[in-house]
Amino acid sequence: GYTTDPAKVLLTSRLFEVMVFLLGWVILVKNLFSNPAQRYKKLVFELLVAIFLIFSALLRWKVFGDFSEDALLFTRKYFILNALVFLIFVQELGKFSLLVNRLKLSPSLVFILSFSILIFIGTALLYLPLATTSGISLIDAFFTATSAVCVTGLIVVDTSVAFTHFGQVIIMTLFQVGGLGIMTFTTFFGFFFKGSLSIENSLFLRDYINENNVGEITSTLIKIIIFTVLVELVAAVLIFVWTEPALFANDSGRWFFAAFHAVSAFCNAGFSTLSSGLYEPGFRYLYHMHLVVAVTIILGGIGFPVFINYYNYAYRVLRGAVRSAIYGEKYRHTPRVSNINTRLALYTTGALLLVGFVCYWYFERNHTLSGLSPYGKLVTAFFGSVTPRTAGFNSVDMTAMSMPTILIYLILMWIGASPGSTGGGLKTTTFAVALLNTWSVATGKMRVEVFGRQITAETLRKAFAVIALSFLTIGMGVFLVTLFNPELALIDVAFEIFSAFSTVGLSLGITSSLTTGSKLVVAVVMFLGRVGTLTILVAITRKTAELRYKYPEETVFIT
Amino acid sequence: GYTTDPAKVLLTSRLFEVMVFLLGWVILVKNLFSNPAQRYKKLVFELLVAIFLIFSALLRWKVFGDFSEDALLFTRKYFILNALVFLIFVQELGKFSLLVNRLKLSPSLVFILSFSILIFIGTALLYLPLATTSGISLIDAFFTATSAVCVTGLIVVDTSVAFTHFGQVIIMTLFQVGGLGIMTFTTFFGFFFKGSLSIENSLFLRDYINENNVGEITSTLIKIIIFTVLVELVAAVLIFVWTEPALFANDSGRWFFAAFHAVSAFCNAGFSTLSSGLYEPGFRYLYHMHLVVAVTIILGGIGFPVFINYYNYAYRVLRGAVRSAIYGEKYRHTPRVSNINTRLALYTTGALLLVGFVCYWYFERNHTLSGLSPYGKLVTAFFGSVTPRTAGFNSVDMTAMSMPTILIYLILMWIGASPGSTGGGLKTTTFAVALLNTWSVATGKMRVEVFGRQITAETLRKAFAVIALSFLTIGMGVFLVTLFNPELALIDVAFEIFSAFSTVGLSLGITSSLTTGSKLVVAVVMFLGRVGTLTILVAITRKTAELRYKYPEETVFIT
Ligand SMILES: [K+]
Ligand SMILES: [K+]
Repeated sequence: GYTTDPAKVLLTSRLFEVMVFLLGWVILVKNLFSNPAQRYKKLVFELLVAIFLIFSALLRWKVFGDFSEDALLFTRKYFILNALVFLIFVQELGKFSLLVNRLKLSPSLVFILSFSILIFIGTALLYLPLATTSGISLIDAFFTATSAVCVTGLIVVDTSVAFTHFGQVIIMTLFQVGGLGIMTFTTFFGFFFKGSLSIENSLFLRDYINENNVGEITSTLIKIIIFTVLVELVAAVLIFVWTEPALFANDSGRWFFAAFHAVSAFCNAGFSTLSSGLYEPGFRYLYHMHLVVAVTIILGGIGFPVFINYYNYAYRVLRGAVRSAIYGEKYRHTPRVSNINTRLALYTTGALLLVGFVCYWYFERNHTLSGLSPYGKLVTAFFGSVTPRTAGFNSVDMTAMSMPTILIYLILMWIGASPGSTGGGLKTTTFAVALLNTWSVATGKMRVEVFGRQITAETLRKAFAVIALSFLTIGMGVFLVTLFNPELALIDVAFEIFSAFSTVGLSLGITSSLTTGSKLVVAVVMFLGRVGTLTILVAITRKTAELRYKYPEETVFIT
Repeated sequence: GYTTDPAKVLLTSRLFEVMVFLLGWVILVKNLFSNPAQRYKKLVFELLVAIFLIFSALLRWKVFGDFSEDALLFTRKYFILNALVFLIFVQELGKFSLLVNRLKLSPSLVFILSFSILIFIGTALLYLPLATTSGISLIDAFFTATSAVCVTGLIVVDTSVAFTHFGQVIIMTLFQVGGLGIMTFTTFFGFFFKGSLSIENSLFLRDYINENNVGEITSTLIKIIIFTVLVELVAAVLIFVWTEPALFANDSGRWFFAAFHAVSAFCNAGFSTLSSGLYEPGFRYLYHMHLVVAVTIILGGIGFPVFINYYNYAYRVLRGAVRSAIYGEKYRHTPRVSNINTRLALYTTGALLLVGFVCYWYFERNHTLSGLSPYGKLVTAFFGSVTPRTAGFNSVDMTAMSMPTILIYLILMWIGASPGSTGGGLKTTTFAVALLNTWSVATGKMRVEVFGRQITAETLRKAFAVIALSFLTIGMGVFLVTLFNPELALIDVAFEIFSAFSTVGLSLGITSSLTTGSKLVVAVVMFLGRVGTLTILVAITRKTAELRYKYPEETVFIT
C-alpha cells in the first residue's frame, strides 16, 4: 500500500530530479564544446536528450508553479515518462563511465568508484516509494543497497515484508551486478557493443580475474558470463522443481522465488524473500532444495579462475578425445592441469568444508540438528558448513546455535571464499599461504613451497598485508559498534562485524537494533570487505616509482 | 597454620621421595659405568651422595614398616635433614642439566625443557604444606607455578592469603628466574663457575639476546644481570620509601613488599602480595609508588637488546669524552647509535604508550578515573597505558572499566612488550613490521624499508608466521575455554586468553571460577605465549637440510 510519508517521497523525487537536471547540463555543455568533426546526427540526438532531461526536471520543479502535490501525482501517473527518463539517465551514466576511463584513473580507483556509484544508485532506487510497502529511512535504504551490492545479505528490514516486488527485483539486480563485479559487467557490455576492450580495462581485468594472457581476456569474460547464467538457470529450475506449488500464490511467484534464490546463492548474496530464510516453515524441510542452494553457493564461491582453469583443461581433453576418435590422432600430452592458485583454492575449500561439516555435526547434535531425520541432519550439517563461508543463508534458527559452533563460524567467516569469486573474506588462498609460510618458517626452510612450486615473495607480502588489514578493519569495526551500541554483547557484535567484513550476512539477530552510527560502520565494513582493504589502500596511496637505490638489509628480532 | 590435609601432605612427600629415590639410582648407575680415569675422590663422593639419597627415600618408605604418620612427623621434625636432601637434589639436577647439554638437543628444545622443568619444580614446591596456609589442589599449584614461571600473573588463589611467606618467596624466585629466561640464568652461572661458555650455549644465546657478536656474549650476559639487579634494587628502595610504615607489621615486611613488587614489576610478572593489587585500600592512592612500578615495568619490557644497544653507545660517548678530556684526543665519530631493532622497539613502545594513555584518559573519565585528583588521573591513566602491555598490575578496579577500554586493552595485550624482554605478546617489532609491510604493499614498493634500512625477507616471513600462530593459539584457547566453561561471556574468556597468551595477567575476574580443563588450557596458552609458538614449532619439527633444488616460482591470487 502507498502509506508513504509525502515529504519523503518528495525528497526522493527531488534527488532524482537534481541528478537528471545536472546530467542534462553536463551532456549539453559537453556537446557544445565537443569536436565539430563528430557526426551531425549523434550531436543532434545528444542535444535532444540533454534538453529532454533538463525539461523533465524543470517540469517537476517549481518553475511552472509551486505544486508539491502535483509532483507526487506525476510520479504515479506518468510512469512511462519516468521510465523513459530513467533509461536515458542510465544510458548516459554508462557513457559517463567511458568518459571516466579517459580521466586515466587507476583501475583500482575505478573499481572502488563503480561500487560506490552502484550503491548510490541502489540507495536512490530502494528509497523510491515504489520499492517499499510502507517506506524506509534513508539509512536503511543505504544499508540495504550496500548489503546487496557487496553481496553481504545483512538486513535491517525484512526483505519479504518491507519491499515490494519492484524493490525485490532491484535488490536482486544489485547483488547480481555487485556479485559478478561491476567491472566485469561494464567491460563485458563495453566489449559487446564496441567489439573490443580498451588496454586499461584489459590490464585491470587481468588482475581482477587472474588471467595472465591479455589476449584471452575477452574470451575469458564471455566464459564467466555464460558460466554464471548457466549455473543460475539450472539452479533456478531445480529450486522451482523442488518447492511445493502450494507455498506460492501462482507459478510466476514460484519462478521469481526460484530465480531470486538461485542468483542469491550463486552470488553468495544470502538475501532471501522469506522472513526466516530457508528456515521458514514450509521450506525448512525441503532438503533437496537446500542441497541445490548449497551446491550453487560452492560453485559461486570457488572463484572464476578455478572454473576457467578446469574449463580449459576439460576443453583440451575433450578436443583431444574427439580428434583421436575422428582423425585417429595419437594421444597428446595435455599440459599441467591446474595452476597453484586453483589447487590451493580447491584443497583449502575441501578441507574447510570437511572440518565445518564434522564440527557442525558434533556441536549441533543437541541443538539445531536435534529432531531432524538422518537425511535432514546430513543436509543441514553440510549446509551449515557451506553457508558461513560468505553465503549467509540460514536453514536453521541462528539463535539456537551452540557457542562452539558460533566460534567456528567466526573462523570460517573470516577465511571466506576463494579469490576471484562472488564471495568475500580473507580468501582461502591467503589462509593457505599463511599456513604454508608458518610451516616453512618452523621447519627452517628458506622458501615457501607447495605442489612443486615456490610461492613468490610478493605473494607472501600481499597475504601478510591482507591479514593485517583484516584485523585492523574488524578490530575498528567491533570497537566502533561497541561504542555506538554499548548494550550489545561482544559475541553478537563480533559475529556481526566478521559477517560484514567477509560479506557473509549471517547475524545473531542484532542488525535491526543497530543505531545509525553502527549501521554506517557495518556498511563501511561490508564495503571494505567486498572491494578489498588492500585495493582501497592501493587506490588512495601515492605510488612509489621504481626504486633505483637499495638500503643495506637488516634483520629485526622476531620471537 | 598447619591445617593441611594429611593425605595430601603424604602425597607430596611421596612425590618428592620418588624423585629423590630415582635420582639416587641415576647417580649410582652413572658412576658405576663411568670412566674409571675420573678422580677417585669425586667418585666416592658421588657414590655416597647416591646412597644417601636412596637411603633417605627408603627411610621414609614402607621398607622399615608401614608408618604414614611417622613420615609426616619426619617431614616436620627432621627439617635440616630434609633441607640437606633438597640441596643435594637441586645440585644433582644442575649437573643433570649439563648432562643434557651433551645429548645435543636443539637449543630451542633445551629452552622449552628448562621452562617445563622449572614449572614442574615450582609446582612441587608450591604444593608443599610449607608453602600454603591451608593447602591447595595440585592443579592450582601447577597453575600458579606456570603463571609465575611464565611471568603472567593470572591467579586462581589469592597470593596474599593462600600462600605463606615461604610460598611467596618461591613464587618470587620463579618469576625472577622465568622472567630473565632460565637459559640466561643457567648459562650465566655455568659461565660464572666454569669461566667459559659452551659453543652451543653461545649460539643459542646469540639468538635469544640478539647479540650477533659471539665474542661479546659473555660480557652482554653480565651486563644484563647487572642491569636487572640494579633496576630492581633502585625500584625496591623507592617503593620502600614511598609506602607508609603503618601499612606493614614491621620494616622487614615492608622490605619484602618492596622487593616483591620491584622484581614483579621488572619481570613484568604482575604478581602482588595484595589481594586487590595496587588497588588495595591504603596503596590505591600512593601515586609516587605507582609511577615507580610503571617505570620499572617499562624498563623491563623494553628488552635487553635495546638496553645493550644504548649501553654500548653511552659507553663509547663517555669513553670519547673522558679521553678527549684527559688525553686531549680529538672528537671521534661514534658509529650508528641504534640498530633497526632498537628503533622499531622504542618508537612502537612510545606510540603505544601515547595511544594507550589518551584512550584510557578519554574512555575512563567517567569510570575508573572519576573522583581522582588531577595528579591521580595522570598517574592512573599512565599506569593504565603501561600495564596491559604484559605487566598485568592493576591500580584500578578492573570490573569497573568501560567496554571501549577493555577492547583497547585486548589490542595492547596482544601486541605486548618488546622482544628479548621479560614480557610476552606478539612483540612491538612484529607489530611494526606488519604495519610497515602493509604500507609497503599498498604503495606498490617491492621492498620494506624503514630508517634507511631494508627489512630482510626472512624477518617478514617470521613476523607473518608469528602473527598467524598467535591467532591460532588464541583462537584455540578461547574455543576450548568456552567449551569447558560454557557459562562464561565471550568478552571475559577472550580477555583471559589474550592476557594469558601475552603473559599479561589482567583478568575480568573469571580465573578462579575456571574448571580444571580451562585452567589447563590457560596454563598451556601462558606457556606457549612465554616460550613462543614459533620456538616450539621449530623445536618439534624435523629440520629440512639446505635445499639444492629450486622450484619454478608462481604467484597466488591474493585480493
Ligand atoms: K553473503
Ligand atoms: K605479566
